[in-house]
Amino acid sequence: MTTFPGDARDGALKLSRALANAQVMNQQTKIRHALTTTREGDFAQWYQEVVSEAEMAEESGVRGCMVIKPWGYGIWERIQKLMDERIKAAGVENCYFPLFIPLSYFAKEAEHVEGFAKEMAVVTHHRLIGDGKGGLVPDPDAKLEEPLIVRPTSETVIGAAMARWVQSWRDLPLLTNQWANVVRWEMRTRMFLRTSEFLWQEGHTAHADRADAMDETLRALEMYRSFSEDVLAMPVIAGEKPENERFPGAVATYSIEAMMQDGKALQAGTSHYLGTGFAEASGIRYQDREGQQALAHTTSWGVSTRLIGGVIMTHGDDDGLRVPPAIAPQQIVILPMLRDDDGDAALLAYCEDLRSTLAAQHALDERIRVLLDKRPGKATQKRWTWVKKGVPLILEIGGRDAAGGQVSVLRRDRLWRDDGKPNFIAQSKDDFLAAAAAEIEDIQRTLHAEATARRDDQIHRGLDSLDAIAAFFDDKARYPGWVELGWSRPTGAALEQVVAKLKALKLTIRNTPLGAAAPGGTCPFTGAPAVETIYLARSY
Amino acid sequence: MTTFPGDARDGALKLSRALANAQVMNQQTKIRHALTTTREGDFAQWYQEVVSEAEMAEESGVRGCMVIKPWGYGIWERIQKLMDERIKAAGVENCYFPLFIPLSYFAKEAEHVEGFAKEMAVVTHHRLIGDGKGGLVPDPDAKLEEPLIVRPTSETVIGAAMARWVQSWRDLPLLTNQWANVVRWEMRTRMFLRTSEFLWQEGHTAHADRADAMDETLRALEMYRSFSEDVLAMPVIAGEKPENERFPGAVATYSIEAMMQDGKALQAGTSHYLGTGFAEASGIRYQDREGQQALAHTTSWGVSTRLIGGVIMTHGDDDGLRVPPAIAPQQIVILPMLRDDDGDAALLAYCEDLRSTLAAQHALDERIRVLLDKRPGKATQKRWTWVKKGVPLILEIGGRDAAGGQVSVLRRDRLWRDDGKPNFIAQSKDDFLAAAAAEIEDIQRTLHAEATARRDDQIHRGLDSLDAIAAFFDDKARYPGWVELGWSRPTGAALEQVVAKLKALKLTIRNTPLGAAAPGGTCPFTGAPAVETIYLARSY
Repeated sequence: MTTFPGDARDGALKLSRALANAQVMNQQTKIRHALTTTREGDFAQWYQEVVSEAEMAEESGVRGCMVIKPWGYGIWERIQKLMDERIKAAGVENCYFPLFIPLSYFAKEAEHVEGFAKEMAVVTHHRLIGDGKGGLVPDPDAKLEEPLIVRPTSETVIGAAMARWVQSWRDLPLLTNQWANVVRWEMRTRMFLRTSEFLWQEGHTAHADRADAMDETLRALEMYRSFSEDVLAMPVIAGEKPENERFPGAVATYSIEAMMQDGKALQAGTSHYLGTGFAEASGIRYQDREGQQALAHTTSWGVSTRLIGGVIMTHGDDDGLRVPPAIAPQQIVILPMLRDDDGDAALLAYCEDLRSTLAAQHALDERIRVLLDKRPGKATQKRWTWVKKGVPLILEIGGRDAAGGQVSVLRRDRLWRDDGKPNFIAQSKDDFLAAAAAEIEDIQRTLHAEATARRDDQIHRGLDSLDAIAAFFDDKARYPGWVELGWSRPTGAALEQVVAKLKALKLTIRNTPLGAAAPGGTCPFTGAPAVETIYLARSY
Repeated sequence: MTTFPGDARDGALKLSRALANAQVMNQQTKIRHALTTTREGDFAQWYQEVVSEAEMAEESGVRGCMVIKPWGYGIWERIQKLMDERIKAAGVENCYFPLFIPLSYFAKEAEHVEGFAKEMAVVTHHRLIGDGKGGLVPDPDAKLEEPLIVRPTSETVIGAAMARWVQSWRDLPLLTNQWANVVRWEMRTRMFLRTSEFLWQEGHTAHADRADAMDETLRALEMYRSFSEDVLAMPVIAGEKPENERFPGAVATYSIEAMMQDGKALQAGTSHYLGTGFAEASGIRYQDREGQQALAHTTSWGVSTRLIGGVIMTHGDDDGLRVPPAIAPQQIVILPMLRDDDGDAALLAYCEDLRSTLAAQHALDERIRVLLDKRPGKATQKRWTWVKKGVPLILEIGGRDAAGGQVSVLRRDRLWRDDGKPNFIAQSKDDFLAAAAAEIEDIQRTLHAEATARRDDQIHRGLDSLDAIAAFFDDKARYPGWVELGWSRPTGAALEQVVAKLKALKLTIRNTPLGAAAPGGTCPFTGAPAVETIYLARSY
């Protein structure tokens, strides 16, 4: 843990320590960052350090499962709340379906299972028994007749419920969602990005016809797109995945794709039009207006705790996380510089007044979330804890500030002055209170603008052959960004050839953006006329 | 499904149907209830009918697991929201811990496991493979070295995290909570009351000493007590469980106990002081102010979806559920009496105006939750759907009401007139709007008062011997209520004898109420002086 970077307000930084740490300082800017690893130095290691130093999550000791700590879970609660409002506003109703799915449900869905690589947690017994040596073993007498699978996703078990609930066209559309934990056995895990257990929401809907189901598929996609941009301040491209990347059994799969600061793509949410295949497997049939039996058209769509990984890799910097205010569990933290003397009472009263005044204000259409951090410890030390957690605004208040009606404000997105000192702005309390909501909203906008500019800057065009693409990624082996090009949308075996060639370059096709103009030119893979735009990228 | 009970507003009830149904009518009151089973007739069957007819939950096809449907889940979301606010207000932080717990964690906690009857879901494999006959089986090559248990409760895995997080007295108290699903393999299940998978919150805290841990244990208990009374309108008795009913490994277990309408007790929430035993098993040690290593004192406390079962059996009546307004997903439902003619537009505009005006009002410190139900179907038919779901206020609005500025209001807790017709009150729209919030709050109070009076009426005193107790319960085999008495608080073998005698009468000791005055007289079990009060009851 790095603490006490160079600090204009804290004269306590001893010369000896400054000298001892000189080698880790950036000689040009004199900034000594709060993390030991930089994004430029080792992005993967930097990511782990942010997760750890911002106290978001940690290894649990249970293979592939993480413990989500209060700051990480607080961000997830914010995401849940704001996404849930959007889901409900669309008329979708929350339900809860079983954690366990009988093995036979998967056997019915051979195609479905194929894609899940069958890496799933299998429950085979329902009792433990002593092994006679002081230990416990699964009781052989309590073996299940049919194994149960811990849900990797719930299409099958929700499909069975929909088959019971849908009788007539009057029952459609049927719009359900659940917030749940799911398990997909992963060999290599990375916190938030790929864990065996993760938290998500899964929307499942049934419709009378293709048009209505496609509308819902695209409504969910647009919900995810606008949520990412507006709430997570994370620019994304919403589009259709190529055939080879479809959810198994889906007729069409759409995604939102975000660019991380190392130039890799992160699939941050998906929405699937499933046609009638899942309805057929589950028996979701209805009597239409003419009295005929028909199969429903179904969709599913989901986002997960992976979004938090996306937020870290979009907004984090060499001092830790920067949380977009809309999802920050605390938007403002007030740090009183307590001295354990008689002046503390007046200082705390001043800070508490500030806190309650801020808490009554609104920013981003909600009450401002503000914390007065009265825990023991030096304010400067606590400051760096909050910097690493990425709280948007930090106020440090000393006794003199309180006496003079002042505050000292640090914006997390403008952390350093040119001279390498933390960029505290002293202002009157009244001025700060008058501008606080606007400041919070400005940070939200600034993070989004910064991420969008970086993303746009890293999208490369004009590569007209596979060789040129290979040379580009070879040349820019480090953080190359994405390549945008027009292709002829090959299918079947022709597509598989393209995918194999790209795979050799560690590249994947991300998606075809919705609403893009038809590109000119020819497809670099097939030589045929290009008919649509795609993005190529390395990816998580 | 029963529909169209006798109805003053709906002249469509045909004579032939009335005659055909005459036998199910109550001859004295002429009320024809919305359910086919009465509480008096068959309480268990009535319960299942409410769960089903109010569309709260249903069997999932997966053993012991239920599907929670939108109305049931909406009630759970309300409970979650209001409980979570109270948990956070107490300074407890939400986290998320793994679904799976390695078998060895339980082996460490032999005493702990003993109490859980070892009935747990055991994951033994992490992959499925084709069986060569078109089916799937657990892959023998993917057998886990150590089986994983689906958490029945999380003391062990959270204890392991606390051992990492707690180093010094400064880290205490450590106050965590998680909202999660848990699994306890149950042979006989009943929806909401006892299911293999259920949803709950589990608070887990660590403290420097016994006093602080006991304060937290009792704080959580009081939180549950006041939540039950104020939010669920469900009167409970908060007290300490007898020694034989303690959570395995706990030093003291406290509960809230509610009386259902059949006189049985429902344990609706528990809070445990765990002493240092769990800290010792998990290694939760800290350096105290004097620099010495010490064991933390831990607590745990939880409530679950079982609360919904308690709400049904506290407030339900022979027409279905009655939801206390504080947890009603919708507090008011507006039913326009559409006629598929030109008048519908004006009627809908009138109803929409009513809806938006109500939605801007506050009741019980929150915005009023109001739904304009525009779905196709006759208003009278939809009415009975909402009656069975228990929505507190139903408005039926016809074209003439709209033209005359009137509304017709049905309070769910005053459903019938003496003549057996639904108790609609016609009033001016303005009068209704002026009184709506007060009406909602009055329903909340009325449900609580009604349940409290019934509970108090069914607590019996003055039985001074086991024979008298046996005779009492024998005499009142049906819905006998509880017996309150003073006892000598026997322990160990003496207590076991008492428990065995009570068990023969199908009775259990519920708890010793906190703060009760010392009873006089002698203990009916031991003949020794009575030192504290207990409740005896049949129970869920």
